[in-house]
Amino acid sequence: MKINVLTLFPDMFTPLQVSMLGRGLEDGKWKLNLVNFRDFTTDVHHHVDDTPYGGGAGMVLQIMPIKKALDSLKEKGKVIITAPQGKTFNEEMAQSWSKEENLTFICGHYEGFDQRIYDLADETVSIGDYVLTGGELPTMSMIDATVRLLPGILGNSASAVEESFSHGLLEYPQYTRPADFEGKKVPEVLTSGNHQKIAQWRHKQALKATLLHRPDMLEKRELTIQEQEMLNEIKAELNE
Amino acid sequence: MKINVLTLFPDMFTPLQVSMLGRGLEDGKWKLNLVNFRDFTTDVHHHVDDTPYGGGAGMVLQIMPIKKALDSLKEKGKVIITAPQGKTFNEEMAQSWSKEENLTFICGHYEGFDQRIYDLADETVSIGDYVLTGGELPTMSMIDATVRLLPGILGNSASAVEESFSHGLLEYPQYTRPADFEGKKVPEVLTSGNHQKIAQWRHKQALKATLLHRPDMLEKRELTIQEQEMLNEIKAELNE
Repeated sequence: MKINVLTLFPDMFTPLQVSMLGRGLEDGKWKLNLVNFRDFTTDVHHHVDDTPYGGGAGMVLQIMPIKKALDSLKEKGKVIITAPQGKTFNEEMAQSWSKEENLTFICGHYEGFDQRIYDLADETVSIGDYVLTGGELPTMSMIDATVRLLPGILGNSASAVEESFSHGLLEYPQYTRPADFEGKKVPEVLTSGNHQKIAQWRHKQALKATLLHRPDMLEKRELTIQEQEMLNEIKAELNE
Repeated sequence: MKINVLTLFPDMFTPLQVSMLGRGLEDGKWKLNLVNFRDFTTDVHHHVDDTPYGGGAGMVLQIMPIKKALDSLKEKGKVIITAPQGKTFNEEMAQSWSKEENLTFICGHYEGFDQRIYDLADETVSIGDYVLTGGELPTMSMIDATVRLLPGILGNSASAVEESFSHGLLEYPQYTRPADFEGKKVPEVLTSGNHQKIAQWRHKQALKATLLHRPDMLEKRELTIQEQEMLNEIKAELNE
């Protein structure tokens, strides 16, 4: 997979170039092409923004440099832009994008986009209900969520599927040494050596965490008979 | 404001040290203290993780190095950890955190936290319904959203309040030069010079964008009589 990013701050993208994603880059498992759209300005001062029509505070990013930067790419693939009016980014999108050969992200910074820039994108995506100084951090999060799903990126191939959201439940609690931390002990079942009991306990704890913290995820899920029985147990225990 | 970050990858935090946030650091408007909790291990190999009790793929971050790193901080302030079971991060949280003198973020990486680590935090926050290789990128997003609200960080003091989410509506469309881009023209009202009409058009467009893309935001908002009239107009126009 090749990912193009149009940004005014290519230097910000170091987090994608270390750790597992960085090793994936070195091994050629994915490619990152950082394009500074300031290089596509034609005026002597290399302005990428201008004052808004109709007045008001702040500046607005112009369409021309971004359009020219896009046109310079050989293979754009799906073009993605972040904006509050977009559909909120989620794991399903990451899974769908991870099957593409090319992706292109457009990052704004401080300022709004000229409305016509949105027409250059195939998808407008929101990263959540908060405001950032630029599109770089959310773009890196989306790239991380997508690239980690590619073959050979995560060290342990099981890791990508055994996590929250990927199977519709929150993750069960995990514990490691020490067995007793200032009086807080690891649940006994986990040191019992009984694998069937451990699997059942984990499944039930995942259901319980989801019921308590994300009941909306349970509503979207088709429960097995076993899960329904576990849920009834959990609810009875919570009412005790 | 001083922000502590407990992480295994302090080098990832360059995005917070450039552009507006970076200038804020240089000017002493906020402080960033990156703490590698690997420095708080006691074994010769500096392990921060171990296999999970009960078996299974992957490794689990141990509580001891993180506890010791936290204890080493003079002023922790509110301790925040990211996890899928947390409340989803939003602009209200950023506004609340921006009033704190100290904040401390704990970042995981690849692996799950030992469940007891969550007890070390005051708030467990989810960044959204997707999985990342580590907590660094969501932590940087939360820091960006918080620090940009501090006095003197954004160049134009108006910028922080005139944006989507901060007043409960999506932003109105913005336009800048050229007035005509491949046949796509700037709306005439914006070049009319009539400031009252421009303000009304923008208000109506913000309502329209919110109605079309985020009707849930409208439900949470108390509409003025003028806004109710605009909404009726918009709905009638959409049905034409």
